[in-house]
Amino acid sequence: MFYRINMATLAVSEDEGLQYQGLGGRALSSRIVEEEVEANSHALGDGNKLVFVTSLLSGTGAPNGGRMSLGGKSPLTGTIKESNVGGPMGHKLGRLGIRGIIVEGLPQEEKAYVIKVSTEGVSLEEMPELKGLNIYDTVAKLQEKFGSKIAIGCIGTAGEHKMASACVGFTDMEGSPTRQAGRGGLGAVMGSKGIKALIADDNGAKVVSLVDEAAFRAGSKKLANALLTHPVTSQALPAYGTAVLVNILNEAGGLPTRNFSVGRFEGANDIGGETMAANIKERGGKVGHGCSPGCIIRCSQIYKDKKGEVLTGGFEYESLWAFGSHIGNDKLDDIALMNRLCDDYGVDSIEMGVAIGVAMEAGVIQFGDSQGAINLIHEMGKATPLGRILGAGTETVGKAFGVRRVPVVKGQAIPAYDPRAVKGVGVTYATTTMGADHTAGYSVTANILGVGGNVDPLKPDGQVDLSRNLQIATAFVDSTGLCLFVAFAILDMPEGLEGIVEMCNARYGWNKTVGDYLEMGKQALRDERSFNKAAGISDGADELPDFFRKEVLAPHNVVYDVPKEELDTVFNF
Amino acid sequence: MFYRINMATLAVSEDEGLQYQGLGGRALSSRIVEEEVEANSHALGDGNKLVFVTSLLSGTGAPNGGRMSLGGKSPLTGTIKESNVGGPMGHKLGRLGIRGIIVEGLPQEEKAYVIKVSTEGVSLEEMPELKGLNIYDTVAKLQEKFGSKIAIGCIGTAGEHKMASACVGFTDMEGSPTRQAGRGGLGAVMGSKGIKALIADDNGAKVVSLVDEAAFRAGSKKLANALLTHPVTSQALPAYGTAVLVNILNEAGGLPTRNFSVGRFEGANDIGGETMAANIKERGGKVGHGCSPGCIIRCSQIYKDKKGEVLTGGFEYESLWAFGSHIGNDKLDDIALMNRLCDDYGVDSIEMGVAIGVAMEAGVIQFGDSQGAINLIHEMGKATPLGRILGAGTETVGKAFGVRRVPVVKGQAIPAYDPRAVKGVGVTYATTTMGADHTAGYSVTANILGVGGNVDPLKPDGQVDLSRNLQIATAFVDSTGLCLFVAFAILDMPEGLEGIVEMCNARYGWNKTVGDYLEMGKQALRDERSFNKAAGISDGADELPDFFRKEVLAPHNVVYDVPKEELDTVFNF
Repeated sequence: MFYRINMATLAVSEDEGLQYQGLGGRALSSRIVEEEVEANSHALGDGNKLVFVTSLLSGTGAPNGGRMSLGGKSPLTGTIKESNVGGPMGHKLGRLGIRGIIVEGLPQEEKAYVIKVSTEGVSLEEMPELKGLNIYDTVAKLQEKFGSKIAIGCIGTAGEHKMASACVGFTDMEGSPTRQAGRGGLGAVMGSKGIKALIADDNGAKVVSLVDEAAFRAGSKKLANALLTHPVTSQALPAYGTAVLVNILNEAGGLPTRNFSVGRFEGANDIGGETMAANIKERGGKVGHGCSPGCIIRCSQIYKDKKGEVLTGGFEYESLWAFGSHIGNDKLDDIALMNRLCDDYGVDSIEMGVAIGVAMEAGVIQFGDSQGAINLIHEMGKATPLGRILGAGTETVGKAFGVRRVPVVKGQAIPAYDPRAVKGVGVTYATTTMGADHTAGYSVTANILGVGGNVDPLKPDGQVDLSRNLQIATAFVDSTGLCLFVAFAILDMPEGLEGIVEMCNARYGWNKTVGDYLEMGKQALRDERSFNKAAGISDGADELPDFFRKEVLAPHNVVYDVPKEELDTVFNF
Repeated sequence: MFYRINMATLAVSEDEGLQYQGLGGRALSSRIVEEEVEANSHALGDGNKLVFVTSLLSGTGAPNGGRMSLGGKSPLTGTIKESNVGGPMGHKLGRLGIRGIIVEGLPQEEKAYVIKVSTEGVSLEEMPELKGLNIYDTVAKLQEKFGSKIAIGCIGTAGEHKMASACVGFTDMEGSPTRQAGRGGLGAVMGSKGIKALIADDNGAKVVSLVDEAAFRAGSKKLANALLTHPVTSQALPAYGTAVLVNILNEAGGLPTRNFSVGRFEGANDIGGETMAANIKERGGKVGHGCSPGCIIRCSQIYKDKKGEVLTGGFEYESLWAFGSHIGNDKLDDIALMNRLCDDYGVDSIEMGVAIGVAMEAGVIQFGDSQGAINLIHEMGKATPLGRILGAGTETVGKAFGVRRVPVVKGQAIPAYDPRAVKGVGVTYATTTMGADHTAGYSVTANILGVGGNVDPLKPDGQVDLSRNLQIATAFVDSTGLCLFVAFAILDMPEGLEGIVEMCNARYGWNKTVGDYLEMGKQALRDERSFNKAAGISDGADELPDFFRKEVLAPHNVVYDVPKEELDTVFNF
């Protein structure tokens, strides 16, 4: 069932959503936005909508199948935006029979509303006591009132301040807000609509019906076997989380350091997964923590400070990088604190870290000044003018300070893999519909990890094909609710992909082929590109900032050299 | 002759520029930028170029023929930018045989260079004493060193700070920097290249040779007659300057007030041309002042403060509006001071005023607080974080403060005519290649002034044709060096246009028709659109902010209703 919430009238209505049948997750979110949001509308205006949708496998016992999608027009990029997130919310909404909640219009007064989802349906409650709270406090207040078993997605002050890099924070299995629908500023859209939180209580919900239970179990087993066998998903990720990538990317010369001026960081080991894991062990935190129901990869962790207090969790490589080598900082505890502050204020840690690095390039503070960086995050939290520049994202920092080396595509910060040394992911940054986003086509697999084949990361050859295939497959995986990390396994083990197809078919009684599901991914990309074009963005924007093509990156002394004409063939399907 | 200045090597070279034959002004500038600037380059990077070009009639005695063009990629809009300017510079460069000066690359150190043009050619001189000076002081220092007869174009601290709304200030006939190449931030491009000033000394220059002197004089006379006969160019403009429009637009309900929330301002008369002219008379200033050699319209003025000290000049309707009704201020002397401050710091007064209005909407200061607005301009001058937000332009203010009602198209502020009540100029705002720009197709003529026909300003009908024809004609006029205000006369008096064609033909020995010259205008538009598309901007961006289509404008209670599909037919030639 779909629910529409009109914030102008505060009315909630039900909607069968027949036009959206057969879709889930990203494919569903992007179709709704493409269909219903006028591309030229202001992202914070009444023409935009905020879409929460479940995925094809939401609510089932599919391994790593707990993710859901948020969608809308991005205030950061002006493009369409789909941001998916783990934690139990997707699962609970799925069990509650929710396919989508579509928030429309703007409230007449600036209040704080909570969307409540339970077996009694969807309703809206005003909770003025939440106004002005950050995410950890919001979660505590909501758990106090509604119990600790609910799932929560909420915004902090950054979202209330409508900052273009505001995220939506979601609780994890322990009820701690360590998961984020991070990129593209959907927290600001939520803030513009006066929605402080979405909560779901699945107490009393029935199990999700499966058309063919046996086939579902068989498919599920195939995927689980793949995940439990592949070395990345069964060993590296559980032991070190994505932080394992710090040393790998550093070795590969693709760890962007001091605002993309060099590809290796002398302090890499101090901020790497191995050091993090040792810290966690020593301080009594936890590695091998799962963020979603049914997760069997368990790449998350609980990170404590020196005193043994929980500081942060779900501490990703990209955040470690953004507050580490990107800003020339090798102090892991400072990075953990910055990650925590971003989760609490409610901003995308990648965008914030990259923005701080560009502010350092402008001379606002010096590279390596981690205390200065912490202060800047508090400036953002206080919404001072300097903080508002930072909260508006990397591109705005560059524009305000007249900086020339600004690592963004379509207004979104380029994350933790230098495209000159990992050329396949450069194709993804340049061409994805979302603004620079590594997850949209994670070519790091074949470029660096030897997963799904091998494509020399330093040469332009083969990168477009690699990125195209991954972008299509990712758009499908993002529609299933499966964690993208299943890709590590299924790229090398075809039976894993078979398992996914079998689960989706068994869930709905479909008889679709792999090709049919990839077509769903292609159609999502077409929907997204159609929206972006109507929003004013031409294929000319499918390009990296020119400094990547001009400035040589040490240690491999490479520039970005996948020709623009080749980039323009990514979507020729 | 063309000169190329390579700022990386400080080398100056001559170039015949054969590929650019037959072009001048905007058509020349836009062709060079389209040909030579990589569309995806960073506007402040070494891939951008700053182009100074003379126009088809530069250096001749053509009436009102003194304008020249600056071009490059805009740091404000990301589009191509042509900004033309009066004062004696264009005339002097024309007499010195200059067709273009193309500044390339970036300097290795941040220094302050002056481009000197004289009968000895073009050279570069470092003048460290100019660094950090604003425009009035820069002009004084340059006149002290090189004499009062030189023409000067220079940047202030806003340009040095690479602010995206920085302009280039040019001296007028009296050597005062009251003329600006204002819009689109080319002052920041100049700053990025380390160019503090361009100066021209035409002492000893020969007269510009005319292939057919008699025909030129005949054509010149036709145009002069038209200008001296048409009531707008012979009466309204000399008496009141463009400030005459305040009461006219207020009467028409199209004077945007308090950030485009209503179309009439209760204080309009206090800031209108009639009041301004009375003030000037009382205080011993001057109306009917000409800004360029050969100007016979003389719409400029010298405005003194209460003590009788010269405060500002070239005081346009759009600046009066931006610091007047747009921010809810009815104090003319405060407006004059703000205009002076913008001219001195070197920012576009339209962009700054609109940005302040959006900051007022965000609650930074209150509408009507003119002292607060003056303070904000000083913040910009001091480059505080708040000042940098403002200096980066209206769109950045909106993004930083999460404002929904942001009057920009393609990142440039919408000027002084509400598109809901002057629908033809709305077509121009939405579709021009330059970001919102009234001069690109000044449909106010037929919409409001009854010049060149009558098209009901409140109805959607006929607006696209009106804007299209004006945009083409304007692109040609902007290529001749003629002041755009000749259009008032030639739209109603065909012999004026004949005169222009005859002068251009006589200057070069051409035999071109009106159609040929309009084709030059069309080709300029095609060049500009081609650049923009490659820079990532699709036709989808040819649209007004959505609030104009949704919020009703009093007193006529109209929304913008020229259909998007019709806007998309503007360039169907």
